[in-house]
Order: sequence, then structure tokens, then C-alpha cells
Amino acid sequence: MTRWVTRPEHLSIVDAGLPAGFRASACVSGLKQSGKSDLALIACDADGATSALRQTRSSAAAAPVLVTRERCDAGGIKAIVANSGNANAGTGESGIADALAVQSAAAKILGLEESAVAVCSTGVIGVPLPSELVVGALPDLAARLEEGGGTQVAEAILTTDNAPKCLDCEVELDAGRVRISAQAKGAGMINPSFATMFCFVETDAKLSREACDLLLGTTVKRSFERISVDGQLSTNDAVILIASGASGLEVAEETADELKFGEALDAILRELALRVVADGEGAARVARLVVEGGDDGVVEHVARVVGGSPLVKAALHGGDPNWGRILGAVGMAIPDTPGLPVDIEIEGVTVCSAGAAVDFDRDALAAAVAGPQVDYLVRLPGSGSACEIFFSDLSHEYVTVNSEYTT
Amino acid sequence: MTRWVTRPEHLSIVDAGLPAGFRASACVSGLKQSGKSDLALIACDADGATSALRQTRSSAAAAPVLVTRERCDAGGIKAIVANSGNANAGTGESGIADALAVQSAAAKILGLEESAVAVCSTGVIGVPLPSELVVGALPDLAARLEEGGGTQVAEAILTTDNAPKCLDCEVELDAGRVRISAQAKGAGMINPSFATMFCFVETDAKLSREACDLLLGTTVKRSFERISVDGQLSTNDAVILIASGASGLEVAEETADELKFGEALDAILRELALRVVADGEGAARVARLVVEGGDDGVVEHVARVVGGSPLVKAALHGGDPNWGRILGAVGMAIPDTPGLPVDIEIEGVTVCSAGAAVDFDRDALAAAVAGPQVDYLVRLPGSGSACEIFFSDLSHEYVTVNSEYTT
Repeated sequence: MTRWVTRPEHLSIVDAGLPAGFRASACVSGLKQSGKSDLALIACDADGATSALRQTRSSAAAAPVLVTRERCDAGGIKAIVANSGNANAGTGESGIADALAVQSAAAKILGLEESAVAVCSTGVIGVPLPSELVVGALPDLAARLEEGGGTQVAEAILTTDNAPKCLDCEVELDAGRVRISAQAKGAGMINPSFATMFCFVETDAKLSREACDLLLGTTVKRSFERISVDGQLSTNDAVILIASGASGLEVAEETADELKFGEALDAILRELALRVVADGEGAARVARLVVEGGDDGVVEHVARVVGGSPLVKAALHGGDPNWGRILGAVGMAIPDTPGLPVDIEIEGVTVCSAGAAVDFDRDALAAAVAGPQVDYLVRLPGSGSACEIFFSDLSHEYVTVNSEYTT
Repeated sequence: MTRWVTRPEHLSIVDAGLPAGFRASACVSGLKQSGKSDLALIACDADGATSALRQTRSSAAAAPVLVTRERCDAGGIKAIVANSGNANAGTGESGIADALAVQSAAAKILGLEESAVAVCSTGVIGVPLPSELVVGALPDLAARLEEGGGTQVAEAILTTDNAPKCLDCEVELDAGRVRISAQAKGAGMINPSFATMFCFVETDAKLSREACDLLLGTTVKRSFERISVDGQLSTNDAVILIASGASGLEVAEETADELKFGEALDAILRELALRVVADGEGAARVARLVVEGGDDGVVEHVARVVGGSPLVKAALHGGDPNWGRILGAVGMAIPDTPGLPVDIEIEGVTVCSAGAAVDFDRDALAAAVAGPQVDYLVRLPGSGSACEIFFSDLSHEYVTVNSEYTT
């Protein structure tokens, strides 16, 4: 899959539907001009389910983000309505009304409180959401809810993605087996600041609200918060974890099982996050960049500037071990400190030491960076801090996707 | 030329060489693999000449930047040695030695103090500068110095630029006529933070050191500090103004002539800065973005984030009035303020009011943004502050230039 994620031994991929307590469905509501699947419903019918939520920090956050943030009980979400084809962003008060209409209709059909229904939209910005299409499709969606519906969800939330991204997993805990499923989408407006995409995670483990929030927060920081396609924070991102508890197995806080569950969730989210990068708009190669140094804030800032540099990304695309552009980006990220001693390694080969070129076998390194995954390391003065991010390359295809039509 | 610069009436373009007191020359020293002109020398032989200098803030600043900063008398520069084909950046101690060797050789040949010779390099990062090629070419360059050499300089400093950028001007002051010439290069690593390129400016006006510095600082802020091709701060930028005083006309501080001279210099630098953007790597269109609001720091930050957004730049490339991406970039630039009331105008047409879509004639606007220059306005809450930046689009050609070979 990828050399950057190791699935723990107690995690296995299974050919199964959603975890116990969950059903899902999807349909063509007419939001996508392509006529493809564009509306998904995920529902949990277990009593005592818990949840956790992470959303974009954008100040241009879309109406469904605001409605979910303000009207939902973040720890008590039991259903998600997610559409592609329209972001319901930049749509003002009428956009809020549309998002509320969807939330309200779904709550009524499912017999839930409105505060238990999260709404998520992705697609073009600034076009009113024809909420009547969504509301009109909900009764049929609710009638067709099924345990095997996770893959339908993964299809329905795609925008410029090339492939659906979902995993159905089993986790062997000391107390027994639980299931985790997750469906994600990405492609554009992917920035390592916060979950700039969708990821819906379902588990039949029993988790307290606090455990749910802690586990999601910790794993999102190591996955969706660490990926960049184009450095652009989206208006519409959301990651939602719902724990049905239907397995009857409780994952209690500060236990060995919580650690195991966390390791499994971490591997699943990192794997999906990397799939989002690998399927980034126009992406042909994925890089991992680790920045080491003495200050958490500085290493993260440098990682984001280097990972967002169009020059670094174009060199990655070209299979060019052009470390001068990495050095240039570091010099930009930390200005006014001339002579900054920076070490750079590409695929484990030192190419720059204390800010100056060192001899290396250029042909061997060019061959090493011609593969689909490339490793960069930047070492700043100091020690004790490190930040890892994953980013895609800048390709002609990215330009085509983003210049030829409104997305 | 461009609708964004108005040449004041007292400024005229002339078909003449460099201002009195200046001579220049250029040659093929062998630094460029293409065999094109790659080394330029500018010399001022007037007593009492003054100068001013602005350089990149990059912490990966190249050896010639450091040598010029630390070894030159910024107000007393009388000669510039500038090469393309090699940035002498990321070259450590040996790079410093190479830059010093060039400075020293030029000083000896020209009969100047070393502190009067600025050295500038541009080109590939991380490759040792073969300074023997530069030093070896200097005697011939010095022997061929001529008043008409400005255009040779403009040719010799090009890297990925498509065309040389220079202006020879006459300025009608109350006290009489003075001349200003300028030669610039740009193309890549152009970011509106500081003069991320070269621009050499010669005048035969007599200026105090303080006036020189003030005039250059003020005009650079409105020109080279306000352009972006790829948001990447260069390791090698330098803008140098030398005033020979050979016209005998003094432009004294706080006089009407200083204002007139400043207006002329402003128009010249803005025109050259815009040529740098228009000839940015792969550039097909140029946009002006004005951000208005109540806080100087915020409007500048927003302008840079929007102007640096690959999504905004790709939409500019595609002739797509896709204001949703501008809104998205504003929301990213100022996070954690959901519902931020943002107004957006494209070519004078309001497309977004208080963060929400408004109706507009999409076909008419699509036609308006199909031209070579596009105007954007973003209005944030508050008033009294404004920041203007100019940026180029993101094209397939940019990707080609930056992925197909090491630049």
C-alpha cells in the first residue's frame, strides 16, 4: 500500500459491510451534472451511540459546516447526510436555510432529533444548493439503508477524486473483536491545516464521548491534518466518527484496548489520508517531508511552506532531486536569518549540509526519486521537535483540472 | 503598456543609452549551458555617486547577497557585476570565496574599493560558481564598457524570462532634465515580499545617500514588493539604484523635484515589475488584486494568500470568473471567523456580497476576464487600509518549465 503506514498486527481488512449498528445508502439526486451518484446517508440506530467531529477552520466555512457546528450535539451525532456536486458555500442566509431544510427532513424521516443529524456538502462554491433535490431523495435513501452501503457512500461523496477511498476493518482487542469502517474523499483544496476533506468513520465499539473526541482528535492530527495537495484550506471539510457500541465491547479510557483501538484508527486514517494525497488533483507522486528542529511551531511552519511550494512540487513531479528549491523554501519560511544551517536529505541521501551543497551520486538519486513515493528530510538547528507532512506533486493535470472548468 | 501604471507627464521614454556617468557591457562567460550572454558589468565613474540597495530577506540568501550586504558600502556602490546561469546559492563557504573573488577582481580592474562593487548572481541553486570564468571575463568586459550597454545588461541577466526588461527614460524636473535607466529580470521565484529579482537603476541626478535610500525604498514597496509569480521568495534578489550626479542637477530632499523624481521612478519600477509578472514563468494573464479593510497587516496577508492560491491562479489562467476560490482563499487567510462578510468584485462587477453569491451576468464577466489583464477587489470589514498586488496565472507552461529540468 504505502511504506509510510504500517498496519498493526491487530488490524485486518475485512470483506464486510459497515460495523454493527450502521446502515448506509446513496443515490443520484441530480446535483452532479455528470449524473453520477451524489447523495449519501449514513445512519446509526443504536441507543447510546457517541460521536466526535472535526471541521474546517475556514472563515468562509460553508453553510452545512456552520449548521453542523451550531445545531448538532457533536458527541451525539447518529446520522450524516452528505452530498457532492454543490458545496453550499458562499451562499449566505439562503444557504443556511437549505442546510437546515436537509437536516430537518433527514431527522424527521429517521426519527431523530435534528441535533443528531450532521450535514456535509462538497462541490462548487457559490451556487445555491437545490435542497429540494436532496429533501426529495431522502425518503428513498432512508428506505434503502443497508449494512453494505459504505461503498455506496464512498462513491457518492467523490468530486474530482479518481477513485473511492474506503476501508472496512476488524480490530482484535483484548476484550474481543470490534469493527471500524471509514469512507473518505479529497482531491482538491487539501491543506495540512485541518481535515480538508470528508472522512466518515463508523465503529461498533462502545466509546465514551470523551474517548471518541480524544481518539478522533489525536488520529486526525497525524493523518488528515498532515496532508497537502494544493495548500488550500477548504470551506467544507468534516471528519466524523460515530461509535454505535453495538458490539457490546467497551473501549475504556486509558486501557490497553484504547491504545490498540487508537493504533488501528491511526493506521486507517493515515492510510486513507495518503490515498487522498495520492489521488490529489493531477497527482502522480507523493512525498513525505519530515522537518526536525528545536521548535514545534517552526518545524510545522517550515514543513507547510516547503510542502506547499509550487517549485518543490513541480520538481517532485519531474522526478528532479532539486534540493535547491527545498533550501529556497526553507529560507523563505524563516526569513532574516542568513546563513541558517540547514541539512537536507532526499531518500536518505544527504544533498545539503549546513546550507551548502555536498557531493552525491546524482544519477542514483534521480533514479530513486523516479518512483511514486519520495522521502525528504529537512534538519533545522535544535532538536526535540519534528513535523511530518505528506504532499502531492504539481502537474499539468492539476492545471487542467483547475483551469478548464469551475470546480 | 498596462492600464495599471500611468506614466506621469514629466516622464518620457527615450532612445538613448545609460544616464551620464554610467557605462555597461555584457558577454558570454560560459556560465549558461545555452551559450547565451550571462555576465554583465555596470560601472559609474562619477565622483560623489550615491546608491541604495534592497535585497532578499531569505535565510537561504546566496553568497553574493551576503557579500554585497556585509562587504559593500550600501550608499557608495559604483559598480555591479551580475551573472545569470548560476545563483551561487547553497554553496557555503566556497561560494562566499567565489563571490569575494569576483568582487575583488572587479574592484582591481575598475580601480575601485571592494566595498564599491556589488555582486549579483541568478540561476541554478546549489552548484558551485565557476568564478574563474567570471574573473577571466572581467578584463574584456571592463575594456568594452559603453554608454549603450544597458540593453546588453538586460539580456545578460535573463534566466527563464522570455524577453529583456529595460527602460531608458528622461525626467523633466523644475531644475532641468535628468535621466533614469533601469534593467530588470524576473520569471521565477517571484513573491510579493521583497524584490525577488534583479533590478538595476541608474540616474545622473545628484541624490544624497538618504534620498537615494528613501526613494528606492518607497518605490520598491509599490512595485517589486507587490508582485507574485509563484509566491516563492528567491535566494538571490537585489535592487540597486546608483545616482551618478553627472547631470549636475541635485534632487534635494523634500522638494517638488524630489516628488517628481519619485513619481517617475515609481512609474518606471511599477512598469518593470508588471513586465516581470507578465513574463512570469508560463504566464498568460496578469491580475491586479486590491484588498481593502481596516488593518494594514490583515489586508496585506489576505492579498498574498489570495494572490498565491494555485486555485485562484488556475482560474485566472482558464479565464474563469470563479470567485468561490477567492472567497475560499480569504477564509483560509483569516481562519476561525466564520461568517466573515467579504465583498468580491471582478472587473468592477460585484460577484459576492457579505460572503454570499449575488446575481451577475456570467457570460459578460467571462468575456471580461478573457483579456490579458484582470482586476479583482476584495473588501473586508473595516476601512482605511488597502493593499495592491499583481500576480500571474498558473499554467501548464509553469509546470513544464519547473518540472522538466533543474532551474
